[in-house]
Amino acid sequence: MAPYVSLAFGGSRSGRRPGALDIVSAIAAQILAGRQTLAGCRLPPIRVLAHRLGVSKNTVSTAYDELKARGLIESRATRGLYVAAATEARKAPAPRSLVPAPAFKPAPDLTSAAPRKNGPLQLGSVFIDPRLLPRQRLSACFRAALKRPSLADFADPQGFPPLRAAIARRLRERGIDADPDHIITTVGSQQVLDLVSRSLQAGPIATENPAYQLGKALFERNDVALLGLPIDPFEGADLERWEKVIAAQRPSLLYLTTHFQNPTGYSYSSAEIARILEWSSAYGFGILEDDWGSDMLSYSEFTPCLRALRGDNVLYMNSFTKKVLPSLRIGYVLANQATTPALLATKRVSIGSCPAIGEAALCEFLEQGYYDAHMLTLQRELDRRYRHCLDLLRHHMPEGVRWTAPGGGPVLWVECPRSVDLPELAVRLRDKQVLLPFSDGAFFGVPHLHGFKLGYACLTPAEMQRGIEAIAVELQRTLGGACSPTSPNGDCAPGREARARA
Amino acid sequence: MAPYVSLAFGGSRSGRRPGALDIVSAIAAQILAGRQTLAGCRLPPIRVLAHRLGVSKNTVSTAYDELKARGLIESRATRGLYVAAATEARKAPAPRSLVPAPAFKPAPDLTSAAPRKNGPLQLGSVFIDPRLLPRQRLSACFRAALKRPSLADFADPQGFPPLRAAIARRLRERGIDADPDHIITTVGSQQVLDLVSRSLQAGPIATENPAYQLGKALFERNDVALLGLPIDPFEGADLERWEKVIAAQRPSLLYLTTHFQNPTGYSYSSAEIARILEWSSAYGFGILEDDWGSDMLSYSEFTPCLRALRGDNVLYMNSFTKKVLPSLRIGYVLANQATTPALLATKRVSIGSCPAIGEAALCEFLEQGYYDAHMLTLQRELDRRYRHCLDLLRHHMPEGVRWTAPGGGPVLWVECPRSVDLPELAVRLRDKQVLLPFSDGAFFGVPHLHGFKLGYACLTPAEMQRGIEAIAVELQRTLGGACSPTSPNGDCAPGREARARA
Repeated sequence: MAPYVSLAFGGSRSGRRPGALDIVSAIAAQILAGRQTLAGCRLPPIRVLAHRLGVSKNTVSTAYDELKARGLIESRATRGLYVAAATEARKAPAPRSLVPAPAFKPAPDLTSAAPRKNGPLQLGSVFIDPRLLPRQRLSACFRAALKRPSLADFADPQGFPPLRAAIARRLRERGIDADPDHIITTVGSQQVLDLVSRSLQAGPIATENPAYQLGKALFERNDVALLGLPIDPFEGADLERWEKVIAAQRPSLLYLTTHFQNPTGYSYSSAEIARILEWSSAYGFGILEDDWGSDMLSYSEFTPCLRALRGDNVLYMNSFTKKVLPSLRIGYVLANQATTPALLATKRVSIGSCPAIGEAALCEFLEQGYYDAHMLTLQRELDRRYRHCLDLLRHHMPEGVRWTAPGGGPVLWVECPRSVDLPELAVRLRDKQVLLPFSDGAFFGVPHLHGFKLGYACLTPAEMQRGIEAIAVELQRTLGGACSPTSPNGDCAPGREARARA
Repeated sequence: MAPYVSLAFGGSRSGRRPGALDIVSAIAAQILAGRQTLAGCRLPPIRVLAHRLGVSKNTVSTAYDELKARGLIESRATRGLYVAAATEARKAPAPRSLVPAPAFKPAPDLTSAAPRKNGPLQLGSVFIDPRLLPRQRLSACFRAALKRPSLADFADPQGFPPLRAAIARRLRERGIDADPDHIITTVGSQQVLDLVSRSLQAGPIATENPAYQLGKALFERNDVALLGLPIDPFEGADLERWEKVIAAQRPSLLYLTTHFQNPTGYSYSSAEIARILEWSSAYGFGILEDDWGSDMLSYSEFTPCLRALRGDNVLYMNSFTKKVLPSLRIGYVLANQATTPALLATKRVSIGSCPAIGEAALCEFLEQGYYDAHMLTLQRELDRRYRHCLDLLRHHMPEGVRWTAPGGGPVLWVECPRSVDLPELAVRLRDKQVLLPFSDGAFFGVPHLHGFKLGYACLTPAEMQRGIEAIAVELQRTLGGACSPTSPNGDCAPGREARARA
């Protein structure tokens, strides 16, 4: 069907009702001005134009008759009135698309680690098993939230105020002197990285090498220069290298994931943090602390964050997304009096405000105590899965393979001997419906690690067993197997733990 | 309370259970390395460290005793164990904040036109009266959506697939050949502007002068060069000026609001669009069409959009936010095969994905037919408010004041004689609890219009009457009043409509 034509009526724009001749002259002028494009377009039905102009249908009908008489519009059977083509244009219809496509930057390759139902096992996911998430409770909170009269009003661009107050209360319980006026909610923690990197006057941003991959991709797309600071999940931060890079390149901001850094699963010690704090003062860089991981750890109230240690210039970020429900996507940043306005302005121009319905539901979830109860249950289950994962690694991994023991949480790192061809291993595992995560894109240059993350939060113990057994069988092809994956108790070789330590 | 200290245990990181002496040496090394920062921090309780390391409480207790004996940690009454300060450091505690604040760009002044309950009348809001919005229906849709099993899974970064399919069906009914694979959902239509402007290889972006103000602020924050193309809500686009600017400055993209442009309330005619399409081909710019306004107009199915007229290179954007519930914040952009990947990559790095719960609820709302029913009711009510607003203007406005008659929808433009001091008028109205919208920041340079937008979608007829009467009283002080705002039928002077037309 041909599109309709939009008509302008200068006269009607000043409140006066036009007569039939006003309508004729306005339409005629527009058809003559744009005939090549408009030929074949439909005129609005009589009742529609009459409604719009506030005139009778007779007036419009009279006007259309006159336009037909002038050869500017034509009837087509029962299908309405059309703009008539000029005689010479009838044979050559205008090309369908005259408009060029805008020239966009090339799209980076962003592979997703989100597991799919009935898909292959995703061994590297840092998501939490959806079966452990409180869907029923959250559903009740949505019902309660939708009754809040304030939701029909207009969102606070900074975030639903009762939610900001609830978050501030929780942070104060963890030793952070948080003011709700300095909290800005975001669409997941990813948006915190976006707001901060776009609000910076200048780069570079320094971050871990290997980096959180989607953050690195974001900073690159935002044209912010990046510095990689090497960490090793067994040895920690290479502080000597760090200071050299920082002294030479002078980052404006250091983006650190203090607990369960993705992909290494590393958590910083306070001694490391103390050195970093000294440098931030000596070399003049700000700090953005990503604390997504800590509260998945049992007794996480005893793991202090940087913000608690060193005051309110540290930008602190966290998220409820993975822990409550991925489809909720609520994160936040805690800034301070000086830094809140710039971040809030960037949020307002980027998305206006977050969807307040989800924020109100999450607020209810926190206020009812559901979050605390959920986290206790979740931590217990993650502890169980963590211990089971360690047991499986001890029992099945051939000599030379090492892994970290982060004490719980969602993810650890497995390091292989250099003789293992990781891409080939991944291909062979894919044939068994097991996906090994690749973090090559997370490194700056040649990777100094030779392994993969192993996420135990997303897989049931049975799934994890299948995954680790599959890896072990393949690794034994390369490394030779001291240990059979099907050995009854799995504990087949003395000295295994010492070996793992090597 | 002092913060806790995070401890690293290299040994435990490779799966072996550490002994008491391993714990002592690891903690001692970390305290000695970071003593200045760590002094006064608390040690984690024994049961916590025992849990983390997978050792007995006795082992940790033995280690802590040894550290006390070495003077590295100390007991404080019943309050636990603390890192002991070195003797010389005891008197000079470390300053509370060593970390510099990151240097952010200055925050622009973004005043909000969102009406507040019990606040003053906001005459320029383009929001819709919350009393007209379908909260009950939407609440039912949230309940239904939360039962969808797919919501516990991981969001599709492009948007909830059934919602994209439902949007594509609606667009096809309006003559747009839309493929769900080319639709990307966003946090309100504001995010479409963000994604498009950040995906562009280069500017400038051309847009209306006066511009949609939050869009202009966004492009400026994104460091995209801007061109203003003058429009006049009475005369339309100044096409002669447009072509001069376009030919000289060569925009890469033209951002147009084809219906109810904010702030002018202007809708383009097909003849204007035909000229713009010719130029897009001749001068090689892409087009981003913002169609937020059209479906608030009765019979809007007869107002074609640019995308329908000229094929799939036009980027088409729209939003459900204002029309369904502001706290929902769901918009979308329809791109094509070539342009979708870049926009999707920018979305993924910016926010990951939108909250899928709201998308699933909106999908339900569309699929159940609630949206169509709601829009019919809404359009009827907006028509009523529009006609009432026109009646009030005709009856109360003094000579020399003009206004547009867009035929319905949410907003029109009122233009005053230059002799009216608009800032002074605004001050006097504010004293009467009536807020006149200021669009000065929307113009490029000196405003060529001298008036304000009047939004009738957000105000009840009684509120609108109070607002217009207040304006009329104040304008009569300047212009002299031919017409008393309290005149019984308001229709006090012959020739009023002809005057309004001048």
